[in-house]
Amino acid sequence: MSARPTAALIVIGDEILSGKFVDENAGYALKELRALGVAVRRIEVIPDDLDEIATAVRAAADRFDHVFTSGGIGPTHDDLTMEGVARAFGVPVVRHPELEAYLRRYYGEHLEPRNLRMADAPAGAVLVPADHPQWPVTSMKNVYILPGIPLIFRRKLDAIKERFRHPEPFHLARVYCLGEEGTLAAALDAVVAAHPGVSLGSYPRIDATDFRVLITLEASDATRLSRAVDDLIARLPPGLFVRAER
Amino acid sequence: MSARPTAALIVIGDEILSGKFVDENAGYALKELRALGVAVRRIEVIPDDLDEIATAVRAAADRFDHVFTSGGIGPTHDDLTMEGVARAFGVPVVRHPELEAYLRRYYGEHLEPRNLRMADAPAGAVLVPADHPQWPVTSMKNVYILPGIPLIFRRKLDAIKERFRHPEPFHLARVYCLGEEGTLAAALDAVVAAHPGVSLGSYPRIDATDFRVLITLEASDATRLSRAVDDLIARLPPGLFVRAER
Repeated sequence: MSARPTAALIVIGDEILSGKFVDENAGYALKELRALGVAVRRIEVIPDDLDEIATAVRAAADRFDHVFTSGGIGPTHDDLTMEGVARAFGVPVVRHPELEAYLRRYYGEHLEPRNLRMADAPAGAVLVPADHPQWPVTSMKNVYILPGIPLIFRRKLDAIKERFRHPEPFHLARVYCLGEEGTLAAALDAVVAAHPGVSLGSYPRIDATDFRVLITLEASDATRLSRAVDDLIARLPPGLFVRAER
Repeated sequence: MSARPTAALIVIGDEILSGKFVDENAGYALKELRALGVAVRRIEVIPDDLDEIATAVRAAADRFDHVFTSGGIGPTHDDLTMEGVARAFGVPVVRHPELEAYLRRYYGEHLEPRNLRMADAPAGAVLVPADHPQWPVTSMKNVYILPGIPLIFRRKLDAIKERFRHPEPFHLARVYCLGEEGTLAAALDAVVAAHPGVSLGSYPRIDATDFRVLITLEASDATRLSRAVDDLIARLPPGLFVRAER
């Protein structure tokens, strides 16, 4: 089995950092990528600034299998993502003939000269077909450049997402407990040590009615996960186990 | 007038990156800090990993006036924030006598030895009083270490936030237009060039009923902002102005 692919999400937009809009795209991409078996390892929200974009994209493209950017690809002064991605890879921005053809078809006689900025892409960019809406997704190496408008972001990600699917999904189990984290910590440590490949998380919930701590267990291997859940339940101090979901 | 303070938010937690919980803390901190006149310049969501935490905290502490972390400060194996912050500043983690006293008071006879991990802090850390809940916020240089549980995160941030207030609030205006961004771009460019200190954003909204593009203008100086709004309205192509909010 090939290693599980990793991803980073980079949300580009002063409008998010200034609180004018709440980002919906990172959450959507996270959920979809995870369902495909992709491990999202980092989310960044950064300003509409050329250096910030270039630095963030470069770092993420080096470290992760896939990088998805959101926002900054329209025709106005604050749309700097294409130039930022180009700078990340040390290439110029060039007019892409195929994108220009898409734009001319889409706008017809209403094409403003300025709209042609949306035909610009880093030199060497590849167009990934995305039937709906009207034009493809521009990618540069392992970076996929998506628009910020949530409806269009979702459509475009949906159109290209199957190419990122990993054969092994994530397997997740939940164990609900009474007590508090300090009382459970020794059992958790023992399970972490005895079950490599299974990652455990521990989350106190002060507003839950029938439990106090949620323990999550996650693995790529379902059998291994099941063994770790059994072991955890056996190791919990008496009377603290409430229920398990697996 | 002193320069407007900047901030970064670092959300630490596999549970967010794996989609088990939706982060609420970054959005809350963003809104509160902004209302205080603090410019949030970056949000990062990173895993429960020592190197990731140390690297992210170090970079943010160097670049921004204030850094706020969320999560990873409980007593279990996945709570690595204190150690990560210590590593960011090249200091050891030490038991903090005042925190230990708080914990002993809070837990009384129910104190598990493991809970004492929550009395650990980077050497040189300072405790910021936060009357409610029971113990203070640990800070290290310009980094404020907040818990991940949303209710407690909010309480603690609320308890310390006034210390970050800047005398000059942000001033924001909105101009609603018809047309599309390509048609508006020249007017926007002209306003950007003519009004330094005013930042413009342009946001197409495909689901709005009476407008197509929202233009936001923002400045620290209310008079300057007002002039830029007047200028923008005058420069818009005929028939595209819908309304302004200022």
